[in-house]
Amino acid sequence: MQFSSSLLENAVNEFAKLPGIGKKTALRLVLHLLKQEKGGVQQFSDVISRMRSEIKFCQRCFNVADGDICSICANSMRKQEMICVVESIRDVIAIESTQQYSGTYHILGGIISPLDGIGPDQLNIESLVHRIQKEKTEELIFALNPNIQGDTTIYYIQKKLLPLTIRVTTIARGIAFGGELEYADEMTLARSLQNRLPVEKYVNH
Amino acid sequence: MQFSSSLLENAVNEFAKLPGIGKKTALRLVLHLLKQEKGGVQQFSDVISRMRSEIKFCQRCFNVADGDICSICANSMRKQEMICVVESIRDVIAIESTQQYSGTYHILGGIISPLDGIGPDQLNIESLVHRIQKEKTEELIFALNPNIQGDTTIYYIQKKLLPLTIRVTTIARGIAFGGELEYADEMTLARSLQNRLPVEKYVNH
Repeated sequence: MQFSSSLLENAVNEFAKLPGIGKKTALRLVLHLLKQEKGGVQQFSDVISRMRSEIKFCQRCFNVADGDICSICANSMRKQEMICVVESIRDVIAIESTQQYSGTYHILGGIISPLDGIGPDQLNIESLVHRIQKEKTEELIFALNPNIQGDTTIYYIQKKLLPLTIRVTTIARGIAFGGELEYADEMTLARSLQNRLPVEKYVNH
Repeated sequence: MQFSSSLLENAVNEFAKLPGIGKKTALRLVLHLLKQEKGGVQQFSDVISRMRSEIKFCQRCFNVADGDICSICANSMRKQEMICVVESIRDVIAIESTQQYSGTYHILGGIISPLDGIGPDQLNIESLVHRIQKEKTEELIFALNPNIQGDTTIYYIQKKLLPLTIRVTTIARGIAFGGELEYADEMTLARSLQNRLPVEKYVNH
């Protein structure tokens, strides 16, 4: 792509560094910003810059926060003795959107994956074990993606917790709501059969 | 979407204002930036802000420029007596990418479209007429999108130029390279027949 202005070219190159954004999309976004008021673009720029420089991570659960403790940990209405273990901030947002969970979270910051060079030491696992020992945690819910890495991570953490006697659960895996049996993969279908529910329980749900 | 940090929420909202970017994509982009070095994000933010505040428009052709005159108008290697009339900066970039055009441009900044409330006065048409009168322009090439608005704009500008005797052309319309006859719309096929070329000319091309 040929540009007649280096200011434009630099802006397009910066946008094109973002994931899933190619040169053409980057150009479209930059030309859109070029049409906006100067104040609006300045605000866009300031908000992004402030986000990166001022955002903090909750010292307890590693969620993003404006202060030392995130709004979920600081909320006394939430069950502080219940911890949902997730891989990333994105999972917290997904679970919060269901409005079905009223406990707290613990963000691992990744998942054990030897092939990608990610071991337990790079994740917030030690702090989770400390947290459970220190707080009166009653239940630990694993909400990790259902794959080998997720299962390895659950297995590793569970072994670390062995001397402790708390309830440890994982979110249910099965045929997705609206999904069709014949298109489900064998693994999902097999697990779905193993973990079958009594119909009364299902209907009351 | 529920956020535990207002800094994160504001950044997502700013990204979601961009065209074609929804809340989920915005979140993905913001979380990507959150993983980057502070310096890199500061650079992203600075480049965008500078682009909007410092970019100029060429006083001759209205292309984006770093100074008063764009690099195409300032380039003495280009045929200054040839003007290609386009709708927007994006069209200039598309034509430049072909590396087949060595003249200059004139960016209208839009197209005559009464339904959208865009009349000739809001476009850079008057300046084009002045430019042609002042400079020794030899050829004017219209490279506008082939639709009613484009044709109206060509018609309007041509009438304005009537006392002048310069060569006025428009880019060829026809079946796109690699396209198939049976899927072409009637209008394109009809024009393509009307403007048929002698085979020798086509083969030499």
